Amino acid sequence: MRNKDEFKQEAIIQATVKLVNKIGFVSSSVAKIAKEANVSPATIYIYYKNKEDLLVSTYVEIKQKLSAALLKNFDDSKPFRDVFKTFWLNGFEFVSKNVEYFQYADQFSSSPFSDLVDYAKVEKHFEPMLLVLQKGIEQKVIKNVPHDMLAAFVFYPMMILSNPKLCKSLDLTKDNIEQAFTLAWDAIKL
Amino acid sequence: MRNKDEFKQEAIIQATVKLVNKIGFVSSSVAKIAKEANVSPATIYIYYKNKEDLLVSTYVEIKQKLSAALLKNFDDSKPFRDVFKTFWLNGFEFVSKNVEYFQYADQFSSSPFSDLVDYAKVEKHFEPMLLVLQKGIEQKVIKNVPHDMLAAFVFYPMMILSNPKLCKSLDLTKDNIEQAFTLAWDAIKL
Repeated sequence: MRNKDEFKQEAIIQATVKLVNKIGFVSSSVAKIAKEANVSPATIYIYYKNKEDLLVSTYVEIKQKLSAALLKNFDDSKPFRDVFKTFWLNGFEFVSKNVEYFQYADQFSSSPFSDLVDYAKVEKHFEPMLLVLQKGIEQKVIKNVPHDMLAAFVFYPMMILSNPKLCKSLDLTKDNIEQAFTLAWDAIKL
Repeated sequence: MRNKDEFKQEAIIQATVKLVNKIGFVSSSVAKIAKEANVSPATIYIYYKNKEDLLVSTYVEIKQKLSAALLKNFDDSKPFRDVFKTFWLNGFEFVSKNVEYFQYADQFSSSPFSDLVDYAKVEKHFEPMLLVLQKGIEQKVIKNVPHDMLAAFVFYPMMILSNPKLCKSLDLTKDNIEQAFTLAWDAIKL
């Protein structure tokens, strides 16, 4: 069970996402975020050094939640395509239910704050996924291309398709998710 | 040749992109954009009704520039794969040279202003591309899936891969662009 501190931190993260998406990074102050989260500014400073630290931590937390969601029902003993499909379905579910996280992450990635992220630490959370991809490459099931390129054809299309703001005319029916999986699979398979 | 008015309008568009990327939609005012563009606020009101109109027009202008870039060396009489590859190479060149446009467009798409866009008008500019796709589908060269899904596997990966802010560890060598084309082509081909 989560303790009181964890609930408070979660409320601060949610308030940061909500406020930044509404009024942007520049206008979002620790005071305004505290108000949105229903805590005092002093409480925020218990957990975060300053506004930059809060913004960066929120981004890292989103990546952490994403990696945990992707790893649901993870079973490395299954064939590569099945493991990959589980990632795909998990990802669709998570992104479509948390569009506001990705709106935040998109803005964050193009902001100067992105230079402050410890990317090695973020990638640690995605290690199980990367190991699966590496195994797929070694077993000559998928193409031997850089991981960034695989992600560009798998993760980003998923993000676009599951975001109703970006993909206005496509319903996320089971058939469409299945069809999109075929395109993702054909892109990466050898 | 462009006349004085067109130069002024272009300066206003560039200033809007620059300022919004720097300080966000909420903090960007017509007065600040005018200052950035080196024109008077009154000049902006000659061309645009208000801030909303300016932000929406800037987005539409970016889409227009993109469609014009994609159509460079367009030759519908060539085989589908060649026409598609020309789009691909044009797109890579345009996106990598104009990352700031896509930072603006990304933020814009998740903002409330995106509801004000006349999307039918925007799509008009992409009609030649859509007709080529439709022909590819009818000739059973590419998969018969919604256009939005094709775009998610072709245009968005290109945007990610050509944006150094989003794709930090991948150099845009000729080989990498070629390899990425293979993935895009495998995704959509029948």
